[in-house]
Amino acid sequence: MTAEQARALDAADPLAFARDRFSLPERLIYLDGNSLGALPAAAPAALAATVEQQWGEDLIASWNKHAWIDWPATVAAKLAPIVGAEPGELLVADSTTVCLFKLLAAAARARPGKRKIVTQKASFPTDLYAAQGVCDMLDLELREVSPDEVMGEIDELTAVVSLTHVDYKSAAVYDMRAVNDAAHVAGAFVLWDLCHSAGAIEVDLDGTGSDLAVGCGYKYLNGGPGAPAFMYVAERLQEALTNPLQGWMGHAEPFAFVDDYRPVSGINRFLTGTPPILAMAALAAGIDTFDRIGMADVEAKSRRLSQLFVDEVEGRCGSEVRLASPRDPAERGSHVVFAHAESYAVMQALIARGVVGDFRAPDLMRFGFTPLYTRYADVVRAAEILGAILESHEWDQPRFRTRAKVT
Amino acid sequence: MTAEQARALDAADPLAFARDRFSLPERLIYLDGNSLGALPAAAPAALAATVEQQWGEDLIASWNKHAWIDWPATVAAKLAPIVGAEPGELLVADSTTVCLFKLLAAAARARPGKRKIVTQKASFPTDLYAAQGVCDMLDLELREVSPDEVMGEIDELTAVVSLTHVDYKSAAVYDMRAVNDAAHVAGAFVLWDLCHSAGAIEVDLDGTGSDLAVGCGYKYLNGGPGAPAFMYVAERLQEALTNPLQGWMGHAEPFAFVDDYRPVSGINRFLTGTPPILAMAALAAGIDTFDRIGMADVEAKSRRLSQLFVDEVEGRCGSEVRLASPRDPAERGSHVVFAHAESYAVMQALIARGVVGDFRAPDLMRFGFTPLYTRYADVVRAAEILGAILESHEWDQPRFRTRAKVT
Repeated sequence: MTAEQARALDAADPLAFARDRFSLPERLIYLDGNSLGALPAAAPAALAATVEQQWGEDLIASWNKHAWIDWPATVAAKLAPIVGAEPGELLVADSTTVCLFKLLAAAARARPGKRKIVTQKASFPTDLYAAQGVCDMLDLELREVSPDEVMGEIDELTAVVSLTHVDYKSAAVYDMRAVNDAAHVAGAFVLWDLCHSAGAIEVDLDGTGSDLAVGCGYKYLNGGPGAPAFMYVAERLQEALTNPLQGWMGHAEPFAFVDDYRPVSGINRFLTGTPPILAMAALAAGIDTFDRIGMADVEAKSRRLSQLFVDEVEGRCGSEVRLASPRDPAERGSHVVFAHAESYAVMQALIARGVVGDFRAPDLMRFGFTPLYTRYADVVRAAEILGAILESHEWDQPRFRTRAKVT
Repeated sequence: MTAEQARALDAADPLAFARDRFSLPERLIYLDGNSLGALPAAAPAALAATVEQQWGEDLIASWNKHAWIDWPATVAAKLAPIVGAEPGELLVADSTTVCLFKLLAAAARARPGKRKIVTQKASFPTDLYAAQGVCDMLDLELREVSPDEVMGEIDELTAVVSLTHVDYKSAAVYDMRAVNDAAHVAGAFVLWDLCHSAGAIEVDLDGTGSDLAVGCGYKYLNGGPGAPAFMYVAERLQEALTNPLQGWMGHAEPFAFVDDYRPVSGINRFLTGTPPILAMAALAAGIDTFDRIGMADVEAKSRRLSQLFVDEVEGRCGSEVRLASPRDPAERGSHVVFAHAESYAVMQALIARGVVGDFRAPDLMRFGFTPLYTRYADVVRAAEILGAILESHEWDQPRFRTRAKVT
């Protein structure tokens, strides 16, 4: 595709307007919004108001005056149309990993006769580490199997099935309804990690009969570095599950200051400590970048962007790279990975040329397509630059081989 | 004391300069920094730079370029002189409650033969709820006893003693060294909650032979609403304890993306999820308000402020209020509480007059003295207004009796 053809696609793009909701450096083609979402244009002022007016002027009164105490639920409620849930099923809190621990432990403890957690090996490491920690603490068995073995592993001994909806490397997508149905037949819960789904593709938690989910605030939701995570607990399960990380914010009467823990009814029982107000102000601005945008449109553009990239890269780079994501766009999330023996150095060369993706060990280049701000012209240009780098071997320099602390 | 005498004390106060490190509304006498610290003057610009330059311009590269990945340790290191610890013994992460869970569970699991956790009843509720949760999960017994029973309760069955150093209501202070020594003789760990100590009075974690501590970022440390908490793990214990909330940030090689959890050496093993960068930018500005200020000076001023308040209130209000904090300033933290049957309404009347303290159920008015920005003149004026409110009974109005959601 020519640059001109790509610009014509951008001109006809019904989501083109959304790019103005972000502050993006003009010099960059940023294809790493799946790792850290871009800065929403409204975030600096939103954060400054929270800091200077609310914290600075109204101080402690802000817990009531600005309803800070309700933000974990009210900010989360903005996610309802993005993940297909009711507002009362969502909560913003903690980090993704802490939320994983909470819901894994809560679910496992609600199935005391079942001692097995099923998950996928080579899943995102923190998901595995959290599950290993829960199993160690509760004396459960963790079964880490390959994706095609998951369904066969779900049986009457299974308490929880814990899966990442969209794989952080390959972008392969699980069939949420199929896994939920199989787990429910076996009497197990399913915990979905939506880190690479929420804000990227259509997710219908309620419609697929989901039980539990967690997700990331700082990727497609644009909530800022280390933004709080979100949790989903289906309404029908909220009274049956208890939060293992008990704290005052999950208490029925947090300001009665009584000695005995008594969980509040509803989703707030999964709160623990004092809500991170400043971080939530940024996250709210991030989620608001989806305001009046349907996830069907987001998913459709996501698929077009990623498929265009696959076509352009394969057309320009031939067998130099190997697609390591599912070939069928319907089986992918919103990113694609290509394998190359020198992926680390090639990615550094790309970044030096202003095309920002990331490297994932051992040999993958990952490119994320964020339909709210990625343009078709960016995709074509990125593929063109990748082709040029591979052809010229400009990646073959010591400076591109020096591994940074964070990759 | 007259207002003029109080102003003379302020003029001679060696810490008077520190008030300029804060943005405080002129109309308020803010005696609630023990609940939410005031806005540091440098915080808005620090946060804006993190948001606009680091997140907005440098995006994902900031994890290396601005060393975001190291912030949990580097921001925590600023606390070393404030709490009497080595930098490598401190970490910023999560909320206080989540940190309590982590360290309680870690300590209890390192004493598998001992099944008892000793704590104080009527301690801050979240401490009790977290301990109840840990005991429930690990099948331990929680003994909640009165302060004078704590030492007698520590025995060879005790795995952990978990205490709040300065009581959130009365401000009574435990003798850290005495508790540590008694616990160590019995083979138990001690976990100190420093929420009402850190930044308020002198704390010497290393010097008193402490094992573990957690503390709050948003009270005396001025880190902003819901700021991340901090943890202390004595260096000698770091390899012996394991973090029950396993996640990628505590892994020896977080970016190797391997399936099996292997904790890193040192304090970072107590990390779990992705660090909350925006919140930490504010917290760093908060801790920096203590730059080049010794905690001995802070404690000395704290004691003078609180004693002046006690004297002034008792002189003006007589038997209308009852001091519910220790009478000896050396036995108190940096706040004082007075009991009054109508404390809630009286506190609302005070707030309406611009004197901000808080109410603590059932009948306490709590006043916090933050030596970095509270003036002697504020203390005298606050006591004067309290006296006037009690004398005039202006608190006796329905609008002051309506309980807010957050008290």
